[in-house]
This record gives sequence, C-alpha cells and structure tokens, in this order.
Amino acid sequence: MSEEWIVQSLEKLREKKPLVQNITNFVVMNTTANALLAIGASPVMAHAVDEIEDMLKIADALVVNIGTLDEHWIASMEKAVRIAKEMKKPIVLDPVGAGATRLRTKTSLDLLDIGTTILRGNFGEIKALLGEHGKTRGVDSAGYDAGEAKNLALEASKEFNTVVAVTGPIDYVSDGKRVYAVENGHPMLGRVTGTGCMATSIMGAFVAVEEPLRAAVSALVAFEVAAEKAYEESPYPGSFHIKLYDWLYRIDGEIIKERAKVREVEP
Amino acid sequence: MSEEWIVQSLEKLREKKPLVQNITNFVVMNTTANALLAIGASPVMAHAVDEIEDMLKIADALVVNIGTLDEHWIASMEKAVRIAKEMKKPIVLDPVGAGATRLRTKTSLDLLDIGTTILRGNFGEIKALLGEHGKTRGVDSAGYDAGEAKNLALEASKEFNTVVAVTGPIDYVSDGKRVYAVENGHPMLGRVTGTGCMATSIMGAFVAVEEPLRAAVSALVAFEVAAEKAYEESPYPGSFHIKLYDWLYRIDGEIIKERAKVREVEP
Amino acid sequence: MSEEWIVQSLEKLREKKPLVQNITNFVVMNTTANALLAIGASPVMAHAVDEIEDMLKIADALVVNIGTLDEHWIASMEKAVRIAKEMKKPIVLDPVGAGATRLRTKTSLDLLDIGTTILRGNFGEIKALLGEHGKTRGVDSAGYDAGEAKNLALEASKEFNTVVAVTGPIDYVSDGKRVYAVENGHPMLGRVTGTGCMATSIMGAFVAVEEPLRAAVSALVAFEVAAEKAYEESPYPGSFHIKLYDWLYRIDGEIIKERAKVREVEP
Repeated sequence: MSEEWIVQSLEKLREKKPLVQNITNFVVMNTTANALLAIGASPVMAHAVDEIEDMLKIADALVVNIGTLDEHWIASMEKAVRIAKEMKKPIVLDPVGAGATRLRTKTSLDLLDIGTTILRGNFGEIKALLGEHGKTRGVDSAGYDAGEAKNLALEASKEFNTVVAVTGPIDYVSDGKRVYAVENGHPMLGRVTGTGCMATSIMGAFVAVEEPLRAAVSALVAFEVAAEKAYEESPYPGSFHIKLYDWLYRIDGEIIKERAKVREVEP
Repeated sequence: MSEEWIVQSLEKLREKKPLVQNITNFVVMNTTANALLAIGASPVMAHAVDEIEDMLKIADALVVNIGTLDEHWIASMEKAVRIAKEMKKPIVLDPVGAGATRLRTKTSLDLLDIGTTILRGNFGEIKALLGEHGKTRGVDSAGYDAGEAKNLALEASKEFNTVVAVTGPIDYVSDGKRVYAVENGHPMLGRVTGTGCMATSIMGAFVAVEEPLRAAVSALVAFEVAAEKAYEESPYPGSFHIKLYDWLYRIDGEIIKERAKVREVEP
Repeated sequence: MSEEWIVQSLEKLREKKPLVQNITNFVVMNTTANALLAIGASPVMAHAVDEIEDMLKIADALVVNIGTLDEHWIASMEKAVRIAKEMKKPIVLDPVGAGATRLRTKTSLDLLDIGTTILRGNFGEIKALLGEHGKTRGVDSAGYDAGEAKNLALEASKEFNTVVAVTGPIDYVSDGKRVYAVENGHPMLGRVTGTGCMATSIMGAFVAVEEPLRAAVSALVAFEVAAEKAYEESPYPGSFHIKLYDWLYRIDGEIIKERAKVREVEP
C-alpha cells in the first residue's frame, strides 16, 4: 500500500528536518517558507550568485520556482541548478507560467536541460514545455484533461529525464515508467495564491529524505490532505489559507492513512 | 441608484474572471494576489522587461504600484504602461509614497504622462502629484480634509486625464466631470499593510469589465464593505486581515445593497 | 523594576507612532510591516539608492535585515547605514544567516564597521560575527548555550560598539557593561518564518523613542509576551502567526507587568 511509505516519508522528513534552499518568486516566499516550517522542514531563501555555493553546501535540497523571474534571477537559478547537480543534491523545479511567455518557457527548458530531480507544474505548464507553446493562460490550471494529464506526466518524464508531477483535479506523477494518481485536495486551493508553489517546496523537503517518485507523491498527498482538513474548518479563502499551515503541522500518519486517495495506474 | 451598477460590476467581474497583470511592490505581492483571487479575478505578477509584452497580450488589465521601486522596476513599469496603452488595455496606477521622496513623485508623474486609466492614492500622495511636493509623511494618509479631497480628485482628474480616486475617511472618485463619494470602510484598514494596494489591484479587476469611473467606485465599495464585515467578526488586525479575504470572497449583491454608502456629489 | 520602563517605552512608542524605514528581506517584508503597524508604529520599505536619503529624512529609525541580500541590496544597505549615521538616526541590524555564507558574514561585518545602534541575531549568527565562522546552519538558532549566549552578547557589544541582543530560549541583551536576560516567548515562534525579523523591526520602533539598551529589552519583552498570549489562543503555526499580530495590537502595560520575565544579570 502506498499509504505505508507516504507515512514513512513524513516521519523521515520530521526526523531529519531537512534544510531546503529556495530560489523562488516574490509572491510566495513567505508562504512557502511557512509551509516548510509547518510541516517540519527548515527553509532558507538565498539568490545572490555570490553565496549560492556556500548555501547549497549546507542545504539538503534545492527548489527553483520561476514565478517572478528576470535576467538577474535567471542567472542565479541556472548557477544554483548547476552547482546542486554537481553536489548531487536533489533539485525541484516549478515552471510557473511556462507557456504564458516565451521567457518562462525558455528558462524552464534551460533549467531542465541542466537537469532536475522533480518537475511540478499544472497541465498547461507541462504541456507548454512539451511543445504546445502558447496555450497557457497565465498561471491558471486551464484546459485540464485527466487522460491527457496522465500521458503528459509520463511523456514529460521521459523527455526531460526527471520525475514529473502534473497537478490538477487528479494529479499524475511519473518517473517515466510508473505512474501514480493522487485525488486529494480541494478546489479552494485555487483561491489562494502560491498553493502550487507550496506543494513544490514541500516536495523539496520530501526529496531530501526519499527517492524522487515517492517524494513527489508523498508531498502531494500530505499537502492535499492538509488542505481537505483546512477546508472542513474554514470554507473561505483567508481562513482556509491559515488553517492550511495548521494542518501541515498537525498532519500525521493516522490522518494520511484515513484520507489518502492514491493509486498506481497503468502507464 | 449606484448600488445597481456596483452589483452588476461585481457580477461581471465574477463572470469574466479577468486576468490582472501586476507590477507591484514586494510588501504586498502576496496580499494583492490573494485579494484578487478572493474576489474572483486571476492575478499574475511579472516584471521582466523581456516578458511584459507577452504577458500583457493575455492580460485584461495592468496594475502598477510603485511601493518598492528602483531603477530596474521603474524601467519595467514604464515599458508596461507604454505597451498596455498601445494595446488599449486599462491601466491602474498606485503612486505609493509620492511626495515622500522625489523619486516616487517623479516616477508617478512620468507614468501619468504616458497615460493611465485610474489613479488611486491617499490625500497626501495625490496632493504631492498636483504640486504640493514634500508634505507627505511616508505612506500614511496624513492631512486629510474632506472638502479638499473632493477638489483634489476633480482637479487631478482633469490635470492627468485619468479617473482619480482619493481615498480616506470619505473617498472621492472623479473623471473630471462627475464626483462620487464613498463612505464605507473601517479605520482598522490602516493597521494592516497594503490595504490601499489591495483596493488598487481590485480596481484593476473591475476596470477589466466596467468603464473606469464606475470601476473605481465599485472596487472601493466592494472592498470597504468587505472590510466592515471583516471587522465585525474580528476587531484585531491579524484576524481582521484574514477575514478581509474571506469577505472579498463572500461579498455579494445583497450585502452591497444593504451596506453601500455611495452618492454622487456636486463637482 | 524593569517592567516600569518597558511599559513606559511602549506608551512612548504608541504616542509617537515612529516611522521606521526598513531595508529588509523579501520573505518578511509583509510580516514586519504588519508587526510594526500592529504594535503602533508606521513602516516604510524603500531600498532604491536614489531615494534613501529622502526617506531617511522623514524616518525616525532605520532597520537593516540581510535575509535575502545581493549586490544591489548590499549597496543600498551600506548607503542607508552611512546616511542614517550621519543624520544620527538609530540603526538596527539583523544579520540573518551570518555564518551560513561568507557573503552574509562579510556584509554584516561591513555594516557593523560603519556603525549600528542595536545588533539582533541568534546564537550562531552573533557567534559567527565574533569569529567562529562556519558553524551556523542556515537561519536556525542552532547550538544555543545560555551561559555562552550571555558572554556573546557582552563581548559582541564591546567588539562592535553597539547594543547586542542574542535571542534564544533565554535572550541576553547587553550594551557592553550591563546585561539583561529575557525569558519570555514560545517555541512556536520557531515554526513561523520571520519572527526574529519581526522582533528586530520592533526594536526599530522602540529605539526611535527610547535609549538602545532599554529599547532592545522592551521590544523583546513586548514581542515575546504577545507570542505567549497568541499561543494560548492558537497552538498551531498558521493561527498562532495571525494571533501574534492581534496581540501586538492588544498588548498593554497591564499584560506586560503580569507576564514580563526580565532581570538584570551579572555581566
């Protein structure tokens, strides 16, 4: 049962308290740092090219999120991914808005070319990266189709040689051979900014303690089950957002076993 | 009755879910993105000069807020306003801290010179832009006088050829001919950072679906009525802030009709 | 009794509503602005070298926090500290992550060399600045030892000619001659990002109305007592964070007298 190793992954995360180095966007820096702290990891945010190497030496994983990129930040991201790869530290990429602008698509592809461990995006973003450039509408999860999402995860994984998580009503996670489907979460996540980015950063914490495919699945299940619990306490976006941190902190093996909707599917 | 078209504006906003492109300050990026999502719009934050054109192609409105400007961001803002104007997309400007420093006053005037659709600021900021440089104290709403505020909205509107909203205990909104007064809101808004910026970004959502004068009035009424409801639930700033998002999500035609304190006044 | 002047400091802060100019990190800009507003001060965030002088003219204190530094921001920080010193405005420095990277250690030392009024950091950060480079783990408060912390505050104060606050389970604050110990607060502060930065920014508000040693102690007591009250209402990190702002707003002389655990200790 997947629930078993998801619970173990969470225990390992809380035991190790991994230090996750983030080069992320201005909108969600606070949000993702708090999500990492709530679940039991330790975040650091550093982007200066002059300190990336020092910071990566002490970090357990690197998360790169292109949400508010510009030329200076792109240089930092590329340097960080390159160094992390050399140091054999896991790398998680969130290609926010890929497809919406050529700069975002190109930057994501350049980073994938250097090499990542996990790529997490919505349907439109991952599709854009696989060549359907120009169909994404901003950072929304438009045009989702479950059957296509599964294939997208599988194909993108092969193409970019990385675990890929395509998130949406049903999330599909693949390492190019196997595919998992996760059906947790709540639509209210779409009414709070940076929830996708939170999921990505939490993958950074899990991949510091677990192999990439399981790390990506565990992060999505933990995050989305926390969202379900949060929504049950607060059905409005401001309060829901706050309760989400509460439940990232409170979530445990028992809740995961009770709530996880995860299954391996035919590739 | 104004209430009728305010309610219709809100309905149109929720129907269209406009994509609002923001070049805003570091302090409020998260805040304004969440305010836009809560009320029913879709935010995107992009500032790289290399992607502004691509992003504006898919955006329904542009919001520019100079709260943490520097030379790089000023270049982005000017390029964005220029392109949005060419594309005939509505532009909302928040001249945060105009009057407090010469850089802020000059940048605001330069952007107004290119052309905006709505200018929203507090009394000191708009007054500084009309030539009373140097009397603003930081980003506070100091020195407010209701009679003068009305004239300020009217005169600034004529001078800068844009709808102007001067916010304060009573807000005045003018297109240079007509003037509306809005008396909703709560002083607790002054104890949470970025509430003025939230109002501005929400104007960006309304002006994507409504003509500018009505858009500015509708945004202020919706935002400030939400603040009143939030305060009734939580009279302390942290909890009030969170409830504000809840009520931006919950606000509807019935609440607006019951609460709106808006009237057209003699210019 | 220390409680007396702490209460008076808070009254002075709320009477004067000091304008605190912050050059701080992207993660906590919103957080620290809201903390300052909640307790009764007025925040401004400006980093452009072209407006620092104008902004400092109207500011009552400067807070510099290196949490997400880069070459552009370092230039702003150095210019700001230099000008504030010339203007004889109090300066508070938070050397976030000193010791974790050489860039952070060097930048902090350079700023201390220009001159600060209060330096607030955790055990590892202050220790790194005193020469034990390389033992800090990110921005965590690792390796804390109470006896050593007291000496660290005292020695760093003499070395850098500034009041020093070493925060941790017991905080030690010294001006190089006297030492105060503060034992308020709650471990949940460690599960919310930027709480150390909040304490630092609140020192900026207190030092605008009080001499530096008392300002640093007053800020820690007020902030940490607010945290205790917040935790009693909400033992989970998201809700705790929100209640923290509520209690920074609600805290008063009576609560401080009842809760403050502060004592002068032998140097």
